[in-house]
Order: sequence, then C-alpha cells, then structure tokens
Amino acid sequence: MIVLGIDPGLATLGWGVVESERGRQRLIQYGCILTVPQQSFPDRLKQIGREMRALLQMYKPDEIAFEELFFAKNVTTALTVGAARGVAIAACAEYTDQLYEYTPMQVKQAIVGYGKAEKQQIQQMVKLLLHMEDIARPDDAADAIAIALTHAAAGPARMQFRMK
Amino acid sequence: MIVLGIDPGLATLGWGVVESERGRQRLIQYGCILTVPQQSFPDRLKQIGREMRALLQMYKPDEIAFEELFFAKNVTTALTVGAARGVAIAACAEYTDQLYEYTPMQVKQAIVGYGKAEKQQIQQMVKLLLHMEDIARPDDAADAIAIALTHAAAGPARMQFRMK
Repeated sequence: MIVLGIDPGLATLGWGVVESERGRQRLIQYGCILTVPQQSFPDRLKQIGREMRALLQMYKPDEIAFEELFFAKNVTTALTVGAARGVAIAACAEYTDQLYEYTPMQVKQAIVGYGKAEKQQIQQMVKLLLHMEDIARPDDAADAIAIALTHAAAGPARMQFRMK
Repeated sequence: MIVLGIDPGLATLGWGVVESERGRQRLIQYGCILTVPQQSFPDRLKQIGREMRALLQMYKPDEIAFEELFFAKNVTTALTVGAARGVAIAACAEYTDQLYEYTPMQVKQAIVGYGKAEKQQIQQMVKLLLHMEDIARPDDAADAIAIALTHAAAGPARMQFRMK
C-alpha cells in the first residue's frame, strides 16, 4: 500500500510518500510544493492544484492522509491556509475517496508514543523508523512523512475526515 | 463582455452572470452551488470544483469577480469558507487570469452609492438595474449578481486580487 501524507500550507505544502507492506514502512520520496508572494493568490492556488495532480499521477497513492487543521494564528491566515488546503483536498478527492486526517497530537502519539512530544523528537523518530541518513528538510516535508507514517501504522484506527 | 460574479461559501456558493455592452448590463443567469453536511468535507469541495468548471464551460465568462474575504466569524469558519473559496478560485484560475475581487463595501458603494447601504437596498437596486421581476433568491445569488454588476461597471477602477 502506498500512502501520501500532506501537511498543507500556501507558501509551503509538504508531502511524503511511504510504502507499507506487512507492517513495515519504507520511504519512497518527499518534497514540497512552494509558492511565493510575488505570484497572485489565484496563481498560487492554481499551482498547488496542478502540482498535487502531478504528484498523484506520479506516485499513485492508495490512501492519502492530511494534517487536520482546526486552528490558525488568526482569521486571515485561516482563510489563506484553508484555501491552499481546500485546493489540495479537492485535487485528492477527484483522484480517490480514500482520504484521512490526523491531528498533530495523533501524529505525535503514533510516532513517539507521547501526544505532547517535541517536533524534534518526531523528526528523529521518523528518520530512525525509515532508515533515513538525515532528518527530512524542510519541516513541512518531515511533518508530511510523519502523517503518512501515522496513517500507514494506524490499521483499524485510521481516521476518516471529520470536518464538515 | 460576460462577467461571472461569485459569492463563495461551503454550503452555498452564489453565482451570477451579467452581460455588459456599451455601459449597459443585462442579467444572463444566476444560481447557487449547494452542498450539505451529510457529504464529507472532501466530497463537498470536489462538488464545488466540478460545478464551477461546468459554469465556466456553460457561460464562458470573459472576466470573473469574487467577493473579497478578510474576515469570518471565527478561525474554524475561516478554514472551511477559505477552502470552498480556494477551490472556486483555483477552478477559475485554470480557466482565465482575468480574476478580480471586491469588498462588500465596494459593492455597496458601486450599486447604491453608499458604502454602508443595507443588504435590502442592494437587492432592490440590482433588481431595478437589471429589470428583474423579483429580488434574486437566495441572498448568496443576489450578492453574486451585485458583485458581477460592480465589476461590469467598474471600468478602469476594477480590482485585481490583492490577497497574497
């Protein structure tokens, strides 16, 4: 089973692809979709949609896991992050209905076994579990790998979208 | 010139199509994209994307005007409204780069000549300007027509996207 993990954002959308077979996980690839404020807002969203569709075609994930977002610094940030996340979710929903989401606390619990673990602990554990030479950079990509791992290891505890 | 006006939302996305020729405006059609909480969040976003693309193919607008959103009741609402708006903007950006946005105050100023006009005044004025028999329903569709009218009448004062 191929799992795509996504940590959505407007400037940086992290993604990570993990293969899961008989309870063992292997890192396939990871990266970021980057947009810049010199682009118009519609152009940034268009780019996110296009690159998401390219990722889906390239890695053909069986299931896709998002970071669940219920907070943001403020309403303006929520509108822009929400837009980027919405475009990514819509692209994935066109591709499959196997969409899942996890809170940062669920990811920490799954990877480190402790819901309030530090970001660095997560990154070290992801590196260890996937036999990586270094910690994935940037943070958004490392987070996306952690989300994919969380889903791959969740089994019957996997989390459908709850946001309405 | 055909102008599509859009008042974005997750449950109700209002739209209105106005033809503008030599300073005169004519209503072509209006309506809503409706989604319900019984659908999953990804499914609602997918539907908004699909129906937006169908609208673009059906009415082939030359320019598209959105309501500018810089506020929301709270962060959770901003995340969901932002997602719906983002999906609609991305669909439109795939179709054209002629995208514009107006604040509610700019719409009021343009339609009634007073930036703090009541919603009802706007709707009456839209009805009058477009020779409609009744006020457009629901409010979201009426608002979308007002946004299209605002853009059609804006001339050199038309507003490019400012949100980054």
